[in-house]
Amino acid sequence: MQNYKLLLAYDGSRYAGWQRLARTEQTVQGKVETALSRLTGQAVQICGSGRTDAGVHAEGQVASFRLETAVDCGVLLEQLRRYLPEDIGALALEPAPERFHARLSARRKTYRYRIWNSSLPCVFERKYVYPVPQPLDAGLMEQAARQLLGTHDFAAFCTRRSEKKSTVRTLEQVRVEQTGQELRLYYTADGFLYNMARILTGTLIEIGDGRRPPQTMGVVLESRRRELAGYTAPAKGLCLMEVEY
Amino acid sequence: MQNYKLLLAYDGSRYAGWQRLARTEQTVQGKVETALSRLTGQAVQICGSGRTDAGVHAEGQVASFRLETAVDCGVLLEQLRRYLPEDIGALALEPAPERFHARLSARRKTYRYRIWNSSLPCVFERKYVYPVPQPLDAGLMEQAARQLLGTHDFAAFCTRRSEKKSTVRTLEQVRVEQTGQELRLYYTADGFLYNMARILTGTLIEIGDGRRPPQTMGVVLESRRRELAGYTAPAKGLCLMEVEY
Repeated sequence: MQNYKLLLAYDGSRYAGWQRLARTEQTVQGKVETALSRLTGQAVQICGSGRTDAGVHAEGQVASFRLETAVDCGVLLEQLRRYLPEDIGALALEPAPERFHARLSARRKTYRYRIWNSSLPCVFERKYVYPVPQPLDAGLMEQAARQLLGTHDFAAFCTRRSEKKSTVRTLEQVRVEQTGQELRLYYTADGFLYNMARILTGTLIEIGDGRRPPQTMGVVLESRRRELAGYTAPAKGLCLMEVEY
Repeated sequence: MQNYKLLLAYDGSRYAGWQRLARTEQTVQGKVETALSRLTGQAVQICGSGRTDAGVHAEGQVASFRLETAVDCGVLLEQLRRYLPEDIGALALEPAPERFHARLSARRKTYRYRIWNSSLPCVFERKYVYPVPQPLDAGLMEQAARQLLGTHDFAAFCTRRSEKKSTVRTLEQVRVEQTGQELRLYYTADGFLYNMARILTGTLIEIGDGRRPPQTMGVVLESRRRELAGYTAPAKGLCLMEVEY
């Protein structure tokens, strides 16, 4: 058995998320598994670094899979690029060490959230940005976000919480970038809870438009209560940028 | 009667071009006319600065139209933004002088052509770029393009030529911009013949990848023969950026 590491980009707009579901649903995992199985003639199961929700995009999703018979990565990558639909791109493929596992070996992930902060229509990037017409104060948002840096229980920023699993994560970096009409929020953490990046973003938007003071962030965090945090920002603005191992 | 000037952006992907055709075809003009007629309660006919082909985009198309009864531009613009589909954006609306005509008053237009010059898949911008995997020499392309600057008979760069109409145009500016994996060609002229920007681009690509020497450009121009120029680059890479009056 040879282990492989595959780097993928995808436009999540028309998929029911990453994870393979019932046969009738279009999922990114399903598309890639089908392509790999057809191309190699082997029954391939891939494992992603994490599930992305319906509508969430990726510029750097990582998946691992094993093959009974080793293949030439350059050839298989070329074939994948021809076989996969236009909204899923195979960026790179390489042999991986025996113990490499896209999810379990991941040390750190970076997500980006794009906000179109203008009342002008955003025609070309409309599937990748969340339009927020009211003015947002990027400085306040960054100040608020910084209160979350470090290791904390992020239960307040998580939906569908399981009582058994730990909700402690380490948020290593938060950056707010303003370019023209657009605000881009970057989050880097050792892991993300379900909807965490989207709830963080919704809460930061409520701070940026003045509905909440920036100090609210620390209070919400300590409460560990989902209902004290802001709304869940829509999926389409979110993109998994990088997984580090 | 009050005359108006409307600034539009659109993603041409799902339209049969700008010009209103049979009722069954989706066109940008059709969508905007229907919206304006519904919103004002008047039978509105709009006139674009020029027709864009099926699949061609616009960041700055200009249209003019007249209304029997004057309206508040701010209010109508807001309504248009809500009424138009997501892939057509109303950017600005203002009253125009009586004699203003979007096509006849236009003095200069700028088109941009985007080439994705990489073998990597271009997932997110796939509808707006033309992928050319073979390496292109931007310097050679710019050198070739500069031979066309000025006033010439551009018949060689025009399909469906009408014997009656002049094919003389003034190409005022050509720019080749390289950013990362992308090449962007900008053309500014007092007017463009049918398919002119796309044939110029196809010819420049054949120069950039070494199939033709850059000096070929002047020869093709002088020949005034379409069959000596390069191929017509696909519509999806082309975008009408600006119309100046």
